[in-house]
Amino acid sequence: MRTPLIVTVIVLIAAFATAQSQPQLSLMPMPASVQPGAGQLRIDQSFSVAVTGFHDASLDSGVRRFQTQLSKQTGIPFRPKAGAMNATLQLHADRGREPVQKLGEDESYALTVSDTGSKLTAPTPLGILHGLQTFLQLAQPSATGFSVPAVTIKDQPRFPWRGLLIDVSRHFTPIDVLKRNLDAMAAVKMNVLHWHLSDDQGFRVESKKFPKLTGMGSDGMYYTQDEIREFIAYAHDRGIRVMPEFDIPGHSRSWFLGYPELSSGTGPYTLEGGGIDPIMDPTQESTYKFLEKFIAEMAALFPDVYFHIGGDEVDGKQWDANPKIQAFIHTHNFKNNQDLQAYFNQRLQKIVSKNHKTMIGWDEILHPDLPKTITVQSWRGQKSLAEAAKQGYSGLLSFGYYLDLMWPASRHYAVDPLSGEAANLNPEEQKRILGGESCQWAEWVTPENIDSHIWPRNAAIAERLWSPQQITDVDSMYTRLNAVSLHLEWLGLTHRSARTQMLQRMAGSEDISALRVLADVVEPVKDYNRWDDAKGPIDFHAPLNRMIDAVYPESDVARNFSNLVQTFVQSGNKDQTSEAQIRAYLTTWRDNDAKLHPLLDRSFLLQEVAPLSADLSALGVAGLQALDYLDKSQPLPDSWKMQQSAIIENAKKRQADLLLMVAAPVQQLIEGSANPKPSN
Amino acid sequence: MRTPLIVTVIVLIAAFATAQSQPQLSLMPMPASVQPGAGQLRIDQSFSVAVTGFHDASLDSGVRRFQTQLSKQTGIPFRPKAGAMNATLQLHADRGREPVQKLGEDESYALTVSDTGSKLTAPTPLGILHGLQTFLQLAQPSATGFSVPAVTIKDQPRFPWRGLLIDVSRHFTPIDVLKRNLDAMAAVKMNVLHWHLSDDQGFRVESKKFPKLTGMGSDGMYYTQDEIREFIAYAHDRGIRVMPEFDIPGHSRSWFLGYPELSSGTGPYTLEGGGIDPIMDPTQESTYKFLEKFIAEMAALFPDVYFHIGGDEVDGKQWDANPKIQAFIHTHNFKNNQDLQAYFNQRLQKIVSKNHKTMIGWDEILHPDLPKTITVQSWRGQKSLAEAAKQGYSGLLSFGYYLDLMWPASRHYAVDPLSGEAANLNPEEQKRILGGESCQWAEWVTPENIDSHIWPRNAAIAERLWSPQQITDVDSMYTRLNAVSLHLEWLGLTHRSARTQMLQRMAGSEDISALRVLADVVEPVKDYNRWDDAKGPIDFHAPLNRMIDAVYPESDVARNFSNLVQTFVQSGNKDQTSEAQIRAYLTTWRDNDAKLHPLLDRSFLLQEVAPLSADLSALGVAGLQALDYLDKSQPLPDSWKMQQSAIIENAKKRQADLLLMVAAPVQQLIEGSANPKPSN
Repeated sequence: MRTPLIVTVIVLIAAFATAQSQPQLSLMPMPASVQPGAGQLRIDQSFSVAVTGFHDASLDSGVRRFQTQLSKQTGIPFRPKAGAMNATLQLHADRGREPVQKLGEDESYALTVSDTGSKLTAPTPLGILHGLQTFLQLAQPSATGFSVPAVTIKDQPRFPWRGLLIDVSRHFTPIDVLKRNLDAMAAVKMNVLHWHLSDDQGFRVESKKFPKLTGMGSDGMYYTQDEIREFIAYAHDRGIRVMPEFDIPGHSRSWFLGYPELSSGTGPYTLEGGGIDPIMDPTQESTYKFLEKFIAEMAALFPDVYFHIGGDEVDGKQWDANPKIQAFIHTHNFKNNQDLQAYFNQRLQKIVSKNHKTMIGWDEILHPDLPKTITVQSWRGQKSLAEAAKQGYSGLLSFGYYLDLMWPASRHYAVDPLSGEAANLNPEEQKRILGGESCQWAEWVTPENIDSHIWPRNAAIAERLWSPQQITDVDSMYTRLNAVSLHLEWLGLTHRSARTQMLQRMAGSEDISALRVLADVVEPVKDYNRWDDAKGPIDFHAPLNRMIDAVYPESDVARNFSNLVQTFVQSGNKDQTSEAQIRAYLTTWRDNDAKLHPLLDRSFLLQEVAPLSADLSALGVAGLQALDYLDKSQPLPDSWKMQQSAIIENAKKRQADLLLMVAAPVQQLIEGSANPKPSN
Repeated sequence: MRTPLIVTVIVLIAAFATAQSQPQLSLMPMPASVQPGAGQLRIDQSFSVAVTGFHDASLDSGVRRFQTQLSKQTGIPFRPKAGAMNATLQLHADRGREPVQKLGEDESYALTVSDTGSKLTAPTPLGILHGLQTFLQLAQPSATGFSVPAVTIKDQPRFPWRGLLIDVSRHFTPIDVLKRNLDAMAAVKMNVLHWHLSDDQGFRVESKKFPKLTGMGSDGMYYTQDEIREFIAYAHDRGIRVMPEFDIPGHSRSWFLGYPELSSGTGPYTLEGGGIDPIMDPTQESTYKFLEKFIAEMAALFPDVYFHIGGDEVDGKQWDANPKIQAFIHTHNFKNNQDLQAYFNQRLQKIVSKNHKTMIGWDEILHPDLPKTITVQSWRGQKSLAEAAKQGYSGLLSFGYYLDLMWPASRHYAVDPLSGEAANLNPEEQKRILGGESCQWAEWVTPENIDSHIWPRNAAIAERLWSPQQITDVDSMYTRLNAVSLHLEWLGLTHRSARTQMLQRMAGSEDISALRVLADVVEPVKDYNRWDDAKGPIDFHAPLNRMIDAVYPESDVARNFSNLVQTFVQSGNKDQTSEAQIRAYLTTWRDNDAKLHPLLDRSFLLQEVAPLSADLSALGVAGLQALDYLDKSQPLPDSWKMQQSAIIENAKKRQADLLLMVAAPVQQLIEGSANPKPSN
């Protein structure tokens, strides 16, 4: 059912992937084919849209959202126009969409803009929705007015599955916050929201059959079934599938508060946890009776054909400790706990299948006993994904796309689902790689800062999954990422604005200019290093109001500064433009600690960043001294270099769970200055 | 009915107005009595609220909003606590409120905070709501955590009527934007929203009896009756009355598109206008039949006892031009058009009164033929207000509180309803002055920038109407205004954040640091000077996306800079701290034009501010040179002074409808430097 559609998409990609030119249009994801034209289409009060061909309520509301958005971007209040035959933008869809969005539905579109008008055509409204986003990205202020450059775009996705996982268990994310993230996903043409709805720390979906799942298994924060239905319709209007995940048999402590009989141990259980991780008991028939009823209820609630059962990180300790379970393993001649989980998954697969759903789970569900109809989501790498594909399983990549690891966008951008071991797959096997999903695990996010943990970096992953494989230029990516970031704030995302409010909270003041200077050059510690401080179970209701919670995962200023240093050093320390900019940064940093100190002393939330602020000033001094030596053509004294080396090593150390990202480029400046390369 | 309540309030004011101390707590409006205590109450995860005494659903939702807001301010996710006997904050209201909020209802409260707990008591939930806002303003980060300082506050308003008028006719303001402005009003203890619902440019209320009022008399944007009822309930929950205004017989063109027979001319009429201003025909009985039905419908929709009929600026030209109307004037022995309007108002007053409402209108309705039960709102000054009070009429002051004139907060703050002619009224007459209303006329606002046109300046007017008359210190006001501004952004107001988005729109870029430097030092032209550019009728659907639309009405930076210059000059040019800060500003400005130029060239919206940017740099250079001369103890050369004088005069000129607010202080710096005063 899925395969023929995928083939079509792959063929289309082959046809258009020849577009090698990467023109400087602020498009993200970059379309498959972009042919610049001459002139530009003016956007003014007379702008209008006409829909011909197929349309329905969903498409009409998409057009209204487009007009609202264009109005926000331009400040022009567009009014409904009568007689739209000469409309500025003509839309035409050939036919309707599936009532429940399917994997591999045609998402292609063609957009032609000339100086007199524009036309957007697509087989279905899915393509129209994508094309409208492209049009919005093209609209920019110019010297003569708002305009869209003349261009011919033919576009379709490289992968049919381009998802974002949001964990709503560790920290609950309200529906309105999820909705604005759907808006953002649509803006960068992502098409699957993977809703991680249950985990140890909370069960977030109303079950009418098992009300204690939320009644006892949550802190009272969960989604009602009505909210879920409305949310799924909202996503569908934006061309986004919603796939639920109920993570079993591990990661399921929240189930056991209300239904301890499902677990392999004796309890009692609390959401806060402690002790060994509880696991569902796969040996008793009552577990499957429960799941039969539960999955039937959820399968009816969530229309998507995919049903995610988790299946990851089953450590098996509760199974080891339960003699009845050990006896079961023995009786069934299972070799180990993995075999027991495979048995569980087989039983589960039958239930899921009976409800007309396709089962999907994390790497660990892969087991020869499972049918090829299941799909595997890899959090462990391209290798396990390639192995699955070789065995005939479809798969998704999430390894390399974990947004909670606080990596720079460039690092995610470099991860390709068809690289590594997957590059060696034959074409048939490669087709089984459906795409990928970024993952927003929610240990350290709140409704306030979740946007900034996801965006704008997630747009780079969206491009990786949509655009031709050869679109890899990092500088271009960052330039376009900045433009996307601006568009996302227009959409209502708070990934930039929330930091201002959080810094003002810490400062207790509206004036945070000096605090912003510091916040601009630090990043949270990477990977799982923040966990180092956590002793025992984490309190998921503790405030997340520290500097680490406010700052962006990636420092644009540090990257920009680092690029300037590269340019300067590579010029043999001769490039005056970059030197002037470097000096301006260093001077600001040198002087910042004195400005910041009154604030630091006043607020308990800022005391922990005082050493960082001092280090930043020291780096400013060090960098400026290096440039002074250089400007006077003096060699850097050894004693001075040793001193600076100590300062820089100190500045590189993690403090307040933060990293000072300009320490390394200042070091490079000093080392580059000490050993100037001859310029050509 | 109203009078006894007002007397009570006045007596209470007299009792507490002796509190002269203005401690440095960030409270606005400043309470009637504030007695600082020792220590502070810590706000952490254990914070809880208990309600004893009277409570109802409205009060409970007020408490929930309070907790949400405290959570936003602190980043601490408060969870419902069981057994709140030892609650951190204990609330007690003696009795319930009126189902429809009345003028002069008891709004007093008492708040006691110690290092172990706090207690808020009030006669009714109105006082509790006010006290909760005070508590929120007191909560601040300290060196040891979030806390509220120990304090004893006894508080009640000076005036019972503290309103904000929002004109929704010229530009429609959606309900959600109005709602956040209600939230802001509640935060500064304002208690009347005056809803200017109809004017020449649009009729904004659904009438089921006369559907053409909105059907033809608006651009399709209006409030349904269901929305209005829900909005009034929202306001009631926040202790705010909603008073409707339907402005007649002038300012009523929008009525005549659907019902031209009401007008004194022949039409046809358009919302865009042109020609002489149409006026309602007060001579035909059919007009009153229409108004009978209409007012009955609206009186049922709006529960507030006051019903505002406008009555301002009736220029009478259509009356003059209509022989039938002139004959009517003659027949009735009216002296002039004013007598005819008085006749109209008498008829109107009977209709309003029959619907159990109190009629209120602008200055012009004052006429000896009108009964003393009507209330007069003065837009022309304390003099007309005092005259009305002497004649026995109740009144409100709006003169001096017009937010659309772009005055600084200090200028509004200096306007007291009981100053000028009103100061000479006897106590009985003074009681007739019920308070005042700020006015947000909507010629130049959109949903995007309306918040910044109202806030934070409106908080200074709120203080004028609530706090004891002797609270007048401008420096203290500005310090506290900054704190309020921060709180209002926490509430969801966009008076600060919208500028960022508008500047980014103009720049087509996220990086607007140089543009912000310029925006920080300009203000829109004052009074009605923006109208100078308008030729013919204004297009109220034109984009408001220029710099003048983005900038704040009042420049904090310019005020701060001006204060620094004062300090420096008054020190005999010796104060080094202020000189260093002045130099930092001047250097930033001097260097800014070069940074800004790439942006200016790129966007048509920025081209008009290029001369301002150049002028700002020139001011920076001039100021720095003056300081250099001074530091070297050199006299300023005459030729140089002449040159600077020309630069400054040029910089003071209006450009792009903006004023460069730092030109005058730079001039003062140069003149002060030229003629140094000896320091003491």
